Amino acid sequence: MNLQIRDVKVILTAPEGINLVVVKVETNEPDLYGLGCATFTQRYLAVKTAIVEYMRPFILGKDPRRIEDIWQSASVSGYWRNGPVMNSALSGIDMALWDIKGKLAGMPVYDLLGGLSRTGAAVYRHVDGRDEQELEDNVRRMQAAGYKYLRCQMGGYGGGVKITEATNLSPGSLFRLKESPESAPPGAYFDREQYLRSVPRMFDHLRKTVGFDLELIHDIHERVAPIDALRLAKQLEEYNLFFLEDPVAPEDLSWVEKIRQQAGVPLAIGELFVHPAEWMPLIKNQLIDFIRCHVSAIGGITPARKLAATCEAFGIRTAWHGPGDVSPVGHAANVHLSVALPNFGIQEWTPISEKLHEVFPGSPEVKNGYVYPNNQPGLGIEIDEEKAAKYPCENTLPEWTLARIPDGTAVRP
Amino acid sequence: MNLQIRDVKVILTAPEGINLVVVKVETNEPDLYGLGCATFTQRYLAVKTAIVEYMRPFILGKDPRRIEDIWQSASVSGYWRNGPVMNSALSGIDMALWDIKGKLAGMPVYDLLGGLSRTGAAVYRHVDGRDEQELEDNVRRMQAAGYKYLRCQMGGYGGGVKITEATNLSPGSLFRLKESPESAPPGAYFDREQYLRSVPRMFDHLRKTVGFDLELIHDIHERVAPIDALRLAKQLEEYNLFFLEDPVAPEDLSWVEKIRQQAGVPLAIGELFVHPAEWMPLIKNQLIDFIRCHVSAIGGITPARKLAATCEAFGIRTAWHGPGDVSPVGHAANVHLSVALPNFGIQEWTPISEKLHEVFPGSPEVKNGYVYPNNQPGLGIEIDEEKAAKYPCENTLPEWTLARIPDGTAVRP
Amino acid sequence: MNLQIRDVKVILTAPEGINLVVVKVETNEPDLYGLGCATFTQRYLAVKTAIVEYMRPFILGKDPRRIEDIWQSASVSGYWRNGPVMNSALSGIDMALWDIKGKLAGMPVYDLLGGLSRTGAAVYRHVDGRDEQELEDNVRRMQAAGYKYLRCQMGGYGGGVKITEATNLSPGSLFRLKESPESAPPGAYFDREQYLRSVPRMFDHLRKTVGFDLELIHDIHERVAPIDALRLAKQLEEYNLFFLEDPVAPEDLSWVEKIRQQAGVPLAIGELFVHPAEWMPLIKNQLIDFIRCHVSAIGGITPARKLAATCEAFGIRTAWHGPGDVSPVGHAANVHLSVALPNFGIQEWTPISEKLHEVFPGSPEVKNGYVYPNNQPGLGIEIDEEKAAKYPCENTLPEWTLARIPDGTAVRP
Amino acid sequence: MNLQIRDVKVILTAPEGINLVVVKVETNEPDLYGLGCATFTQRYLAVKTAIVEYMRPFILGKDPRRIEDIWQSASVSGYWRNGPVMNSALSGIDMALWDIKGKLAGMPVYDLLGGLSRTGAAVYRHVDGRDEQELEDNVRRMQAAGYKYLRCQMGGYGGGVKITEATNLSPGSLFRLKESPESAPPGAYFDREQYLRSVPRMFDHLRKTVGFDLELIHDIHERVAPIDALRLAKQLEEYNLFFLEDPVAPEDLSWVEKIRQQAGVPLAIGELFVHPAEWMPLIKNQLIDFIRCHVSAIGGITPARKLAATCEAFGIRTAWHGPGDVSPVGHAANVHLSVALPNFGIQEWTPISEKLHEVFPGSPEVKNGYVYPNNQPGLGIEIDEEKAAKYPCENTLPEWTLARIPDGTAVRP
Repeated sequence: MNLQIRDVKVILTAPEGINLVVVKVETNEPDLYGLGCATFTQRYLAVKTAIVEYMRPFILGKDPRRIEDIWQSASVSGYWRNGPVMNSALSGIDMALWDIKGKLAGMPVYDLLGGLSRTGAAVYRHVDGRDEQELEDNVRRMQAAGYKYLRCQMGGYGGGVKITEATNLSPGSLFRLKESPESAPPGAYFDREQYLRSVPRMFDHLRKTVGFDLELIHDIHERVAPIDALRLAKQLEEYNLFFLEDPVAPEDLSWVEKIRQQAGVPLAIGELFVHPAEWMPLIKNQLIDFIRCHVSAIGGITPARKLAATCEAFGIRTAWHGPGDVSPVGHAANVHLSVALPNFGIQEWTPISEKLHEVFPGSPEVKNGYVYPNNQPGLGIEIDEEKAAKYPCENTLPEWTLARIPDGTAVRP
Repeated sequence: MNLQIRDVKVILTAPEGINLVVVKVETNEPDLYGLGCATFTQRYLAVKTAIVEYMRPFILGKDPRRIEDIWQSASVSGYWRNGPVMNSALSGIDMALWDIKGKLAGMPVYDLLGGLSRTGAAVYRHVDGRDEQELEDNVRRMQAAGYKYLRCQMGGYGGGVKITEATNLSPGSLFRLKESPESAPPGAYFDREQYLRSVPRMFDHLRKTVGFDLELIHDIHERVAPIDALRLAKQLEEYNLFFLEDPVAPEDLSWVEKIRQQAGVPLAIGELFVHPAEWMPLIKNQLIDFIRCHVSAIGGITPARKLAATCEAFGIRTAWHGPGDVSPVGHAANVHLSVALPNFGIQEWTPISEKLHEVFPGSPEVKNGYVYPNNQPGLGIEIDEEKAAKYPCENTLPEWTLARIPDGTAVRP
Repeated sequence: MNLQIRDVKVILTAPEGINLVVVKVETNEPDLYGLGCATFTQRYLAVKTAIVEYMRPFILGKDPRRIEDIWQSASVSGYWRNGPVMNSALSGIDMALWDIKGKLAGMPVYDLLGGLSRTGAAVYRHVDGRDEQELEDNVRRMQAAGYKYLRCQMGGYGGGVKITEATNLSPGSLFRLKESPESAPPGAYFDREQYLRSVPRMFDHLRKTVGFDLELIHDIHERVAPIDALRLAKQLEEYNLFFLEDPVAPEDLSWVEKIRQQAGVPLAIGELFVHPAEWMPLIKNQLIDFIRCHVSAIGGITPARKLAATCEAFGIRTAWHGPGDVSPVGHAANVHLSVALPNFGIQEWTPISEKLHEVFPGSPEVKNGYVYPNNQPGLGIEIDEEKAAKYPCENTLPEWTLARIPDGTAVRP
Repeated sequence: MNLQIRDVKVILTAPEGINLVVVKVETNEPDLYGLGCATFTQRYLAVKTAIVEYMRPFILGKDPRRIEDIWQSASVSGYWRNGPVMNSALSGIDMALWDIKGKLAGMPVYDLLGGLSRTGAAVYRHVDGRDEQELEDNVRRMQAAGYKYLRCQMGGYGGGVKITEATNLSPGSLFRLKESPESAPPGAYFDREQYLRSVPRMFDHLRKTVGFDLELIHDIHERVAPIDALRLAKQLEEYNLFFLEDPVAPEDLSWVEKIRQQAGVPLAIGELFVHPAEWMPLIKNQLIDFIRCHVSAIGGITPARKLAATCEAFGIRTAWHGPGDVSPVGHAANVHLSVALPNFGIQEWTPISEKLHEVFPGSPEVKNGYVYPNNQPGLGIEIDEEKAAKYPCENTLPEWTLARIPDGTAVRP
């Protein structure tokens, strides 16, 4: 079959107010196309340009079955490579090619990846609260809904101290000061000391109330100094966490070895990774327990399945990043990887809303704490382009990434 | 003074057919603006989008004197960071802010960086030839023109074997097969074996004919396997190279230690670096002798001067990347760094043509093998926007980055 | 401009009884001069000789804008280099050259260093007491005065044991035996056992009474054996110190790795550093969290800003030494660095008295726990030479540096 | 006996035009005094101030027999410590105390150090020449005079190239360009490439002409980049050097490991050491074969004998620095150490002229390539203060320490 890529389209949509980037790769076969996620929500227009101006002309006319060759040659085609913009663009193409291949084979992508190692992938959800009690209540609600793994965060001004005014807590939020110090620049201020003390107190409360039957997770989100993360990790040992996430920023990864020397806590890192030089030292020295990459930020299914293979060789499990700024297409890719990989650990999960399901028919579904791919060929997911068009993207600067400490110093978000 | 950034413009121009990206940051002070280089020629439109859609709104209204704060907060403002697109965009802003600061101070940027450590910076030029004799002739021409450091490459089908048909050799070219193997995909093929044998022969010829008074450099350009690079490095020891460049690709940096264990040859790596995780292990373990970063690809003067300070602490010298896809504004930034830094090693140099000088008045100039900044405040360089507009950019895919070995396998270019 | 250094003067003054050494570098431009701190109070006359006899003739006639070249060439001009006497002399020159450059630029020095990363720098103060209660009272007084970071020490004969006789406690004092053992030589005796037990008790008291809202610091001041420091560090983990200072002496730095393997406590070291061989292993192996150098003891702003850049690359923050034997000129240099450096951590602070303010107009000021530079060009500080002359220095031997343990053995102070 | 230090005098003298600093420690016993060398010729006035103003009052009244206690307490008495000025001052005191102790015991100092391990210490001398032939002639002259170990250097513009104009070659000189490049600052320029090529050629010539019966030494004098030193070390393997000296500067000591991994050449480092952090890593990792400290620069006999003990534990031999800027008193101290220490390797030797012998009666003497202490009590050396006064010191700046490479960059001398 003389199969060729005939066109590449970028579809932008924001059904839930989060800008999503989906790539559609069309072939010269009628109705044979694939979908991929290229979402880098904070820079979606740069990704779009990268796809339209560079990836598209690069792959037009190529045989979509030669995924590896396309990935290798496209990734270095700009000479400078890696980084979130180009990797996201590449991911959109790559996932779409896997979708096409599945359709050609009449098989779900997980079958191309080796077949089901499990029928559904256990997921973890985010839970938070402004104080221990609110958090506990939310935890119990999630538990009742069948979730067995929960990431627990607590907002506001510190453990046990109720705050009167509602703080618009997002799942990733930490301790944020609502008011900046005198004459300091605007930003999302947070209080390291309050945060560091609240976390052991939070888990102490949870373990005493909801007990040890739930698997609990916490995300430091890189906002404290490496040595503070080390101490916190030690203090959390007794609470038997499923894992502790992102103790340090990508720029500080050489500190993980220090944490590892003292703390017996499973570590999960990777959602910000955009370069092999970030993950390789952690893997070969077995400094982490879960690899957390954002699959589209590293370039799609092709690099993810190989990264998982390398992790398997070192006894490290997967925990693919799955927040709201992964499109349902990206979630589908995550799920196909998660049900197929032998060294799957857990899948982060953010519910796919009604609106998203309408725009993305075939999105994976969760039952009793497990997420299931549908069993359609390819990724098994569609996009309704007309409905997608109803939710145009808006280019606004995120405020939460402008993180500062109380003296006004810009820090990593 | 209530100084604010009022506007940010992106100027695209290609006087020599290479797409250049220049950023102009304007302030609320009449006639106070700065210029920076954001050139990533193979992805210039993605960089433009990144600047116009993200960097510009992020910095409008900010005080241009707070360079460090802007750099730190902008670099993480998209959460995912690093990589060539976002770093190039950031570099355009950063260099422009240093230009503004110099103008405010009435000082050349080199004075802000600690003052002149030397009045001019020694440069190296590229020389090549299709065989030893042509290369020797070209080397002698450069020597006569006052250059003391030369990067020598030889093209065509191997040392000593004359090729009849002209191979359109660019300075960066290596051994390229002109015809692809049967049924192999299109690309720039090259022959590893021919290449590996030709390099020692080339230096043997040069040392026997032009002698040892010239400092010679060679660029492997990452195109052979790491163990081949190791062996070549050992074979080149006796020719007293000034440095051997890019023995391995960024994805293979952990191999450098192996080369270092056996070869007594100065190593220079870095032109492709876009993430600190690439350079830090090389620096802290003293595995390289020259850091070769493309200043705009790592984010501009702010990270470059700090990287240089770190290198100084480890006894490593600078050799900033200076090919034709650095705009004259970027060359000016290179030169200001190179004349100021105590641990300067050498500056790569590509001549700035008449056309470029017209578009960029004040470009640095070379005399007798040394490049000199002018002594105007800031970077000391201008852009004639009308003339720049005469040379519009054209978006074409580079062919040379599609590197393959004879069996058709895509490899790193 | 043909700018030259015309003269170098050393000004000795002791408004508060502490011998301060200030350097004034004059240029051939009328009224263009700079001030630097060369204070090494215990050896101020040796520093003066070094400046007058060696640094002065070395730099006369040189261009004061070439700071880096002067620093590099002066530092090795005696062949043997480093050490506190020569580094302090060099610092006096170096800071003065940065002061001159700022004045030439019409900019505060912090603007030359990259601009404000924060408008004010958080400071920590010293607090002590003869027992827990006295310490707590003093802590509350400081807290009421707006300080958020406090270094807590307890003097006398140990935690909880009230001493009846006043022990003339200086802020830096530790446990001193007032009477020497029989037939032992004179000195400042101290009791390791008492000290080691008292510190956890002290923090237990403070955390139970004043709580966790304050950031607390403790300085071991190198007076116990390395393994004792290790044990103490572990015992202090639960009190969430901001940092633990100087667990070992410069001669024992290879022990820090041992402490690091077991203790999850932030470590700050460096006030005694006079040679890169002291700090580089700690930095590249990430064995400390805060670099505490005495800026004048390492040679001034030029090495300090590069040291800070190296620390930044390794995720280490600054906490420049700021005791009473730093002149207000040196404090100003500290503050300019502290407000500009992205990886600033904290600034040690000793109040500048009325007398000092009179002699040194323009000294930095503290408001609500933050220290602010003024916004004058250069370091923004002056010296009133007439008033300075009213407070002549007196050469006396410090007694506290003659530290001994109870059996009479001389130990590191 | 109630023995006390009654006075401390500093004697400055320059019989050969090199400023020497000798310390005389007097006791309350008539005619019981000691002499020590505190020479730091390039900063002799700073050393004098340090002794007169700080060391003298510190030790007055103390028992001169408690050498260790005085050394320990004095070394930290200024809080900041180490460095060449304070160590030299301390050395003057320390050697004088050992001299006193020997006189009290009626024994040469070597007997206090454990007694003679050998009756004379083999020495090496410096030889140089402007070309191979001149060097060979000078080598033969030394050989005829009984010397078996020779340090060979070659000056001028490169091996084999005769220079017509005399270059005032000092024993430490390397390749110096006599003229500085255009507009470059004044200094002692040298040409790295010429130097690197000349050294193997030099040894090739010597081994072919004078053969292998002589032990040959070469001093890189830190003037090339670490990687160049590595390559040179490899190239010199075949010439069976006794040792290769100072391949890198004290700031670059972490590079020695790299040299050690590839080059089978004995390494000697240390003449510039002023801090234990410089030598400890080299010793414990066995990266050098000879410790070369300048005994007065590390604080005298007390630290030197302990350093030698540590070296013995690691199989490293001594080769104390012995140039013309060691006073005959310092040479005597070297010799007492060298004849006593079990792990003595070699002693650097600079002839003591007639003038020096007159000023310093009892100076050690060389016979047939070995240096011998006299067998008088103490160091066995005197100073004729009247004669010493005839040769006053003159404070001039050394020019040779202002080393630069051809582009004008200041480098380590």
